[in-house]
Amino acid sequence: MAKANNATVGTYLAKRLEQAGIRHIFGVPGDYVLDFFDILEKSNLNVICNCNELNAGYAADAYARLNGVSGVCVTYGVGGLSLLNAVAGAFAERLPLIVISGGPNISERSHHHLLHHTIGDMNLQYNIYEKITVASVILTNPRQAPRQIDETIEACLRFKRPAYIEIPTDIVSMPCQEPGPFVADTDIPSDKEAIDEAVSEAVELLEAAKDPVILVGIEAHRFRIQNELQDLVDHSGYPFASTLLGKTVIPEEHPQFIGVYGGYSSWEDAHKVIEKSDMILCLGTLMTDIEVGGVNALFDPSRMIIANSDKVRIKNHVYNQICLIDFIIALKDRLKKGEAIKVDVPHPSIALKERYTPVPEQKITLKRFYHRINNFIDSGTVLIADAGDSTFNVANLFCRKGVQCIIQAFYLSIGYSIPATLGAKLAEPGLRPITFVGDGAFQMTVQEVSTLVRENLNPIIFLMNNDGYTIERVMQDGAFNDLHMWKYSELPSVFNGGWGCAVKTEGELEVALQKALEHNNELALIEIQIDRWDCSDSLRELGAIYKQK
Amino acid sequence: MAKANNATVGTYLAKRLEQAGIRHIFGVPGDYVLDFFDILEKSNLNVICNCNELNAGYAADAYARLNGVSGVCVTYGVGGLSLLNAVAGAFAERLPLIVISGGPNISERSHHHLLHHTIGDMNLQYNIYEKITVASVILTNPRQAPRQIDETIEACLRFKRPAYIEIPTDIVSMPCQEPGPFVADTDIPSDKEAIDEAVSEAVELLEAAKDPVILVGIEAHRFRIQNELQDLVDHSGYPFASTLLGKTVIPEEHPQFIGVYGGYSSWEDAHKVIEKSDMILCLGTLMTDIEVGGVNALFDPSRMIIANSDKVRIKNHVYNQICLIDFIIALKDRLKKGEAIKVDVPHPSIALKERYTPVPEQKITLKRFYHRINNFIDSGTVLIADAGDSTFNVANLFCRKGVQCIIQAFYLSIGYSIPATLGAKLAEPGLRPITFVGDGAFQMTVQEVSTLVRENLNPIIFLMNNDGYTIERVMQDGAFNDLHMWKYSELPSVFNGGWGCAVKTEGELEVALQKALEHNNELALIEIQIDRWDCSDSLRELGAIYKQK
Repeated sequence: MAKANNATVGTYLAKRLEQAGIRHIFGVPGDYVLDFFDILEKSNLNVICNCNELNAGYAADAYARLNGVSGVCVTYGVGGLSLLNAVAGAFAERLPLIVISGGPNISERSHHHLLHHTIGDMNLQYNIYEKITVASVILTNPRQAPRQIDETIEACLRFKRPAYIEIPTDIVSMPCQEPGPFVADTDIPSDKEAIDEAVSEAVELLEAAKDPVILVGIEAHRFRIQNELQDLVDHSGYPFASTLLGKTVIPEEHPQFIGVYGGYSSWEDAHKVIEKSDMILCLGTLMTDIEVGGVNALFDPSRMIIANSDKVRIKNHVYNQICLIDFIIALKDRLKKGEAIKVDVPHPSIALKERYTPVPEQKITLKRFYHRINNFIDSGTVLIADAGDSTFNVANLFCRKGVQCIIQAFYLSIGYSIPATLGAKLAEPGLRPITFVGDGAFQMTVQEVSTLVRENLNPIIFLMNNDGYTIERVMQDGAFNDLHMWKYSELPSVFNGGWGCAVKTEGELEVALQKALEHNNELALIEIQIDRWDCSDSLRELGAIYKQK
Repeated sequence: MAKANNATVGTYLAKRLEQAGIRHIFGVPGDYVLDFFDILEKSNLNVICNCNELNAGYAADAYARLNGVSGVCVTYGVGGLSLLNAVAGAFAERLPLIVISGGPNISERSHHHLLHHTIGDMNLQYNIYEKITVASVILTNPRQAPRQIDETIEACLRFKRPAYIEIPTDIVSMPCQEPGPFVADTDIPSDKEAIDEAVSEAVELLEAAKDPVILVGIEAHRFRIQNELQDLVDHSGYPFASTLLGKTVIPEEHPQFIGVYGGYSSWEDAHKVIEKSDMILCLGTLMTDIEVGGVNALFDPSRMIIANSDKVRIKNHVYNQICLIDFIIALKDRLKKGEAIKVDVPHPSIALKERYTPVPEQKITLKRFYHRINNFIDSGTVLIADAGDSTFNVANLFCRKGVQCIIQAFYLSIGYSIPATLGAKLAEPGLRPITFVGDGAFQMTVQEVSTLVRENLNPIIFLMNNDGYTIERVMQDGAFNDLHMWKYSELPSVFNGGWGCAVKTEGELEVALQKALEHNNELALIEIQIDRWDCSDSLRELGAIYKQK
C-alpha cells in the first residue's frame, strides 16, 4: 500500500537541510518567511533566532566552520540584504552556508503595486546573491523544486561555498514529491594525466630542494582532508607552518610544526625558516594580502608549489582540474619517505614553558595578558578572534591538540566574533568558546550576547578595551577612531544572564579567570582595560607598512 | 597672481558634499577609507561615527528626510555590504543619500593576490550598488573625477534617490582641479504638450465628479513642493487624506484634512470618504501594498488620477515625462476655484478633544497609552515610528502644525527607528524626537542609543515591550516570535548617559512623562510594558488578511 504523501515544498526543503547535516538553523523571522519558520519549528532542526540578520549570518558562518555546513533563514529584502555581508565573508573564506530567504508570492510577481520590503524589482535579491554564492535559485514550480533544491545544496557541499534558495511564500505549502534519502555527490573530479604530470614535477623539485617546507592552508580544513594532509607531512619529514587562516588545521603539538606564517604575524622563527627555504609547498592556502603582506618568499614563484582545491600552480604555470586531496595522496605515494628535517628553531610549544607569575597590583598589559592566556587555554576550547589586533594575538597563541581556532583572517568583518561564538558553541557543544574581541568590534554586534544567554551557553568573552579602533589608530589616527565608553561589565545584567567584570590589574585577572572556571555553565564577560596604544608588534608593523604606502 | 591649488580628489569630494547641503556625515571608519575620513574630519562637515554601518545608513536615511540630502561613508566590502539594506530602503522611499565607499588602490586592482574585505572581485560592490542607486561611479582618474563627482551628486539631488561613489585609497590624495561653486541642475523637464493634454483631461474629470478627493503622497515632500501642493488643495476645496508615507506632508490641522488613508490604517472616516469618492486625485503617492492593502478604491483605475514625480496616469493610460510640480501648478491654474467641500465626518483634530484622565493604579494598555501621547506631543516634535505596530499607531496620532513624522512605511526595515532618531535630531536640532519602537526592533539596533548619548541628544524613546514580534504573532505564531527579555531600562547606565525607567501603570506613565519634560536635555528610555497580544486594530486586521491568503 502506497504511503500517503504529505510533502510540500516547505517540508521537502526542511528535510533536505537536516539531511545535509544541519542541526541548528539561524535566522530572523519576517512576514515573507513565517510559514517556513513554522515548518522549521516543527522539524528536527533547532531554530535559533538571532537579534538581527547580519548576526545570524556570522553565527551560521562559524557553525559551518565546525559543523561542515550551516543554514540561515531570513525574510525578503530587509532580511536578505541585511544578511549579505556575512554571506560574502563565507564565500571569501569557503564555507558551505545555505541561505534560505522567503520571497513575494509567485502570484504577486506581476502585480502593478509595490510590495513592502522591496524596491519594486522582484529579482533584485536573487541577482545580488548570485554574485556571492556558488548556486542560487528562486523556487517557482513545485514539480521542479525538489531537483533544484537538491542541486543547489549539492553544489554548496561540493565547492564549500554559500548557496541561495529563495522560497516564495505561496510555494511553501504546495505539494511536491516526498524527500527520499539524500546522498550528495561532492566529488570534484581530477584529470589523471594532469595529476601525473604535476606530481612528477613537484617530486622532482622537492627532492632536489635543500630546505623544503610545507605551508598549510585553510582549504585542507574546509574539505575535511586533515588526515591525508598530516600523512603527507609525516611522510615527507618537512617542517611545516600554517597560515593565519590555516591555524590548527594540523595540531600545533606536531613535532614538525614551526609556527604560524603570515604577513603580519610575529612568529619570527617560522619566518626565518620559510624565507630561506628554496621550495615552499603550499597546500590549500589562499594567497591573501593579510597572509602574504610584508613578506618576500611568497612573492617568488620560482620556489613555490601551490596546490588548491581545484588547481595546482608550480612556479609560473598552472595545472587545472586537479583536486587538492588527489594531489596530496598522489604526492605522498610518489615522494620518498624522509626523516624529520631538523630546523634551527625551537618548537613553538616553548611558549608554554615560559612561566607566568602574576604581580597582583601590576597594571595588565596586552603582552602579559596573552602570556597568561597561553597557560589558561586547555584542550576543550575553541578560540575565536575578532578582526583587529585580536586576530594577530590569537594567531600567536600556542594551541594544544583539541583546541580549535576561528579567525575570519581574510574577509575580516569587524563584529564577527560575538555571533560566531554562538555558532561555534552550538556546532561543538563539547568545546568552551574563549572569545577575544576589541571594544569597537564588540559594539557592532553586542546584542548577540543576549542570544548566548538565552541559549544558556558558557563562553568566556575577553573584551579588550583599549578605548577605540586601535588597528586604525596605528594607520591613521583621528577622532573618528574614538568610541563612546560603555560600562561593558553591566551588560550581563541587562541581558539577564551570565556575569561580567572589569579587569585592570594582574591580580584582578586571576580572580576573573578563577571565577570563569568555577562558573563553568555561565557566560563570562571579562573586560580587560589596557592602554590606548597597547597593541601587538604585528599591528605596529602593519601600521608602519600602511603609512609607507 | 593665480592662487595655489592644493585640491585633491579627496578634498574636492568633501567640498562638494558640503556644497550639496550636507552638514553631518555618518559612517564607520575602516582601512580602505581612513585617508578620506581624515579629510572629512578636517573639513566643515561634522563626522558622526556610528556603531555599525547598517545603523549609519538608517541615520543617513532619516537625515535626508529632514535635511533634503545626506551622506554616509564606509570602508570597502565589510562596510559597503553591511550598509546595503539601508540604501535599498532609501532607494525605495526616494531619499537623496550619497554613499561614499573607500576602495582598493587603483594600482592593486590587477594584482594576483586576494585583498582582505573582498571576495576577489574588485567590481562586486559597484555592481551591486548600481542596482539600488540612481547613479554610481568608481573614481579611477583624477582628471575625470571632478566631473564624475558632480554628475553623480546632481543625479542624486535631481531624482531623490541614493548615489554611490567609490573612492580608491590611492586616488584620495591625487591632485585635481579646485572645486568651484556647485550649482546642481535638479530640474526634471516636462513635456509641454503632454501636460496640456493631461491637465485638460484631469480638469474635465474632476469638475464632472460629485465627490472628488485628494490623496497626498510622499513625493510632494521629497521634491519640496508642499507649498504648491497646499495651494492646489486650498484652491480646489476638495477634502484630502494623506497616505501613511505622506503623513504631515500637509499639516493635519488644515480644515480640509480628513485623515490618513492606508491599507491597514484605522482612520475609518477617511476610509468612508475615499471609498465613496468618484474621482481620487493622487499627488505623489507610491502605490505600495501597505498603502492599498485591504482597500477597494485604489484598485479601481476608472476613478483615479495619479500624478507622480515623472508621469501622470489617468484611468488606464499614462502620460510620460510630466514632472509632478509642473502638473500641480498647471492644474491649479486651470481648475475652477471652489469652496471647501463639506464632508460628513468630523475633523481628525477631534482626537485631541477627548480628554485623558490617568487612573494611577490601572495597568497601561496600548490604546490608553497612545491616547495619552496624543495629548503629550507638541509642535516642536518629530515623531519616529519603527516597523511593526508602532507604524500604525503613530499614523493614527493627530499631528499639530510643526510636528514632523518619520515612518519608513513602505520598505519597513525593522530596527530603523533608533538610528533614524540620531539622523533626525542632527538634521533638525530644534525638534525633540519622540520615538516609538517595539522590543524586537529595538534589539536589532540597540547600540545606536550609545551614539545618541555621545552626541548629547535628547530624544524620548518609548520602547513598546509586548514580549516578542507581535506583528508576526498575529499572522503566524510560534516560538520564533519570542524574544529574550532584557532589563531595557538599565541601558542608559551602560551607555553612560540619559535615564531609563519601566512603566506598567498609568500613574507611572505620568511620572515618566513629567521627568522627560523636566530633563529636556537628556535622552529618556521609557519602557512601556504591555500585554503580549495588546496591539492596534490595524494590526489585527492585517493579521486576519494575512491568514486568509
